[in-house]
Amino acid sequence: MSEYSLFTSESVSEGHPDKIADQISDAILDAIMAEDPRARVACETMVKTGVAIISGEITTSAWVDLESIVREVINDIGYDSSDVGFDGATCSVINIIGKQSPEINQGVDREKLEEQGAGDQGLMFGYASDETDVLMPAPITYAHRLVERQSKVRRNGILPWLRPDAKSQVTLRYDADGRPEGIDAVVLSTQHNPDIGLADLREAVIEEIIRPVLPAEWLSKETKYFINPTGKFVIGGPVGDCGLTGRKIIVDSYGGMARHGGGAFSGKDPSKVDRSAAYAGRWVAKNIVAAGLARRCELQVSYAIGEAQPTSISLNTFGTETVPHDRIVAAVRDVFDLRPFAIIRDLDLLHPIYRPTSSYGHFGRDPYTLNGAIAFSWEKTDRAEALKAAVS
Amino acid sequence: MSEYSLFTSESVSEGHPDKIADQISDAILDAIMAEDPRARVACETMVKTGVAIISGEITTSAWVDLESIVREVINDIGYDSSDVGFDGATCSVINIIGKQSPEINQGVDREKLEEQGAGDQGLMFGYASDETDVLMPAPITYAHRLVERQSKVRRNGILPWLRPDAKSQVTLRYDADGRPEGIDAVVLSTQHNPDIGLADLREAVIEEIIRPVLPAEWLSKETKYFINPTGKFVIGGPVGDCGLTGRKIIVDSYGGMARHGGGAFSGKDPSKVDRSAAYAGRWVAKNIVAAGLARRCELQVSYAIGEAQPTSISLNTFGTETVPHDRIVAAVRDVFDLRPFAIIRDLDLLHPIYRPTSSYGHFGRDPYTLNGAIAFSWEKTDRAEALKAAVS
Ligand SMILES: C[S@@+](CC[C@H](N)C(=O)[O-])C[C@H]1O[C@@H](n2cnc3c(N)ncnc32)[C@H](O)[C@@H]1O
Ligand SMILES: C[S@@+](CC[C@H](N)C(=O)[O-])C[C@H]1O[C@@H](n2cnc3c(N)ncnc32)[C@H](O)[C@@H]1O
Repeated sequence: MSEYSLFTSESVSEGHPDKIADQISDAILDAIMAEDPRARVACETMVKTGVAIISGEITTSAWVDLESIVREVINDIGYDSSDVGFDGATCSVINIIGKQSPEINQGVDREKLEEQGAGDQGLMFGYASDETDVLMPAPITYAHRLVERQSKVRRNGILPWLRPDAKSQVTLRYDADGRPEGIDAVVLSTQHNPDIGLADLREAVIEEIIRPVLPAEWLSKETKYFINPTGKFVIGGPVGDCGLTGRKIIVDSYGGMARHGGGAFSGKDPSKVDRSAAYAGRWVAKNIVAAGLARRCELQVSYAIGEAQPTSISLNTFGTETVPHDRIVAAVRDVFDLRPFAIIRDLDLLHPIYRPTSSYGHFGRDPYTLNGAIAFSWEKTDRAEALKAAVS
Repeated sequence: MSEYSLFTSESVSEGHPDKIADQISDAILDAIMAEDPRARVACETMVKTGVAIISGEITTSAWVDLESIVREVINDIGYDSSDVGFDGATCSVINIIGKQSPEINQGVDREKLEEQGAGDQGLMFGYASDETDVLMPAPITYAHRLVERQSKVRRNGILPWLRPDAKSQVTLRYDADGRPEGIDAVVLSTQHNPDIGLADLREAVIEEIIRPVLPAEWLSKETKYFINPTGKFVIGGPVGDCGLTGRKIIVDSYGGMARHGGGAFSGKDPSKVDRSAAYAGRWVAKNIVAAGLARRCELQVSYAIGEAQPTSISLNTFGTETVPHDRIVAAVRDVFDLRPFAIIRDLDLLHPIYRPTSSYGHFGRDPYTLNGAIAFSWEKTDRAEALKAAVS
């Protein structure tokens, strides 16, 4: 065996400063898309003690009250008083948003809609593996579930002394066939109010967050737990750490198990291939695994700014393919159209479906109807049959 | 073959807005480290039309003139007049930097220096392969060289109409053994002044940037060139695109060929394992390949905040190992000490050596003496002999 015997992934809660920034950027995107689906949006946010700064480039005919959106997102997360360190009602909101460069615009817009150019150059990866039901790597899946659970027990009052900021990390042990077989270490840090003692906090986190989420058969006497290892985490959110959009791109995707092209998702409308082609990449990879053509699959795609056709499409099946690799590549080309226009059409991306993607992962989530469209449409395995037909 | 037959990586020049932000963050780090090597620095920058905002958490006894540093970095890059879209002398500089949370600090500082805890949780990867002399993947190596060349011919007057902002992208074709064998596509977009016509620009870019850099034997009639595909790129820098620290983490590392843990480098002092452990990971991986123990090697390491020992260390040699994988893992544990204190000591990281890392890649660069220390010390193959001894 020459592969990893241990693999670690992390996640963060919706109260983490970088995630506050991502959620603000995507809430702004959604508000604009609701009124002007063809708007060009690239919205970047910075949050620090007492202030949220929104920036980037937006070209739209919509009029939206950006300040209110920012305040609402911050309050919704739970930062609604100076006691918790940040207050959506009273923080400063600074807007330094500009417009999309007309020179970029001329590269993207084309008379024939199908020929729409990519909004930027770049490389993106899509990934799937049969390690979990949702065809995602196990470490990131469980890291997300831990911080989702933190949010749930904070909001439903089971652990009322929890505060919004939290981070999780899971180290999984893999057997020689690359199957997860146990949990080696769990790290969980959560913000809390000053009343709770460290011993009580640790016990409650184990009982109410860790045990309900992690498979019992993967926990053993050897499992190491690191719960609030600094000892104190009352100060959190933007006071403790400056937050920026696009700074949790590995949490957003595959927890490090797959490669990453570097492009961020939040705040970007789907003319930006950093987002839309990464979603399409997941869709392609998941359909390949769902069709049984490989147990594990990673796709790389790249674009030149202003060009519709990808500059490259390439596939890695890590030796797990069940039909010859070349035939899978050919089937992908037959079944999927990876021009920006086609991705936007096939995944129906011109709708306000983005805010829910900005916490707890863009991948491995169940599709559902939201604002007249399917959120997480890229998780559908609706092309698996077509792929099977194409390889045979 | 089930691996990629094509692989694409990109790079950006020092005038790209995200890179302006990275350079400002690292210049501030260096200025503080020069006076107070044990300072805690996490400096995040946002640049947009007419403004640079510096934020993050800094705890130091040093007094440095941050505003002047910001202006100097911007001017040094070449943004020194409104004509080019941004002017270091006249832009606004806004400082919203806070201090490191004392609760994080109590987790990191220990009475015994060796027990210094990791400044955050997280996962990091190190990578090396024998694909190039510098033991880096070829696509990112050539993508960097293209934008470095853009900067050189801009600065030395060969192409005086060039402006600072540029991006490159290289698609390499690999043979069945995973050896690069040709270049499929090259993308290069460069900012320029309004006087140069598109046809002249394209010819000059091919002759003065692309041909001097890319190996002639890898270029053929099939190679596709995309040079300024939008047709016009006069507006650039922060006017065209908001820049943020830590938004080019794949450019900074292995161009997507290796996995990434998600942590950014620039602006972070080495108590932050996102930076120091990623540097150490490169050092370990490069020494393994230099010692001939594997042709290709990727190391994952992870930490819990406040803990000195990594929560996991794991290795992937992709079937290219020349001695049993387990013995390499054991040798790594023998030869390298991956506690934050030991990394900082062994790589001598408490010096102002960071600004040069913030453009054209943190890895694959030659070590050299800078401000009384070795910059890029993590590129030294000084433990290869010890590794060979440890496996035998
Ligand atoms: C450790 S901070 C990053 C480092 C920080 N910029 C600094 O200057 O030290 C990263 C994240 O850790 C979490 N965090 C903040 N305070 C913490 C504490 N006292 N203990 C554990 N985790 C904490 C928060 O989620 C925060 O966003
Ligand atoms: C295309 S912009 C990113 C998208 C942008 N935020 C928007 O709203 O359209 C990314 C980078 O492309 C480069 N760029 C800017 N203007 C360009 C142009 N007219 N043609 C080609 N590349 C350009 C710059 O390096 C810039 O930082």
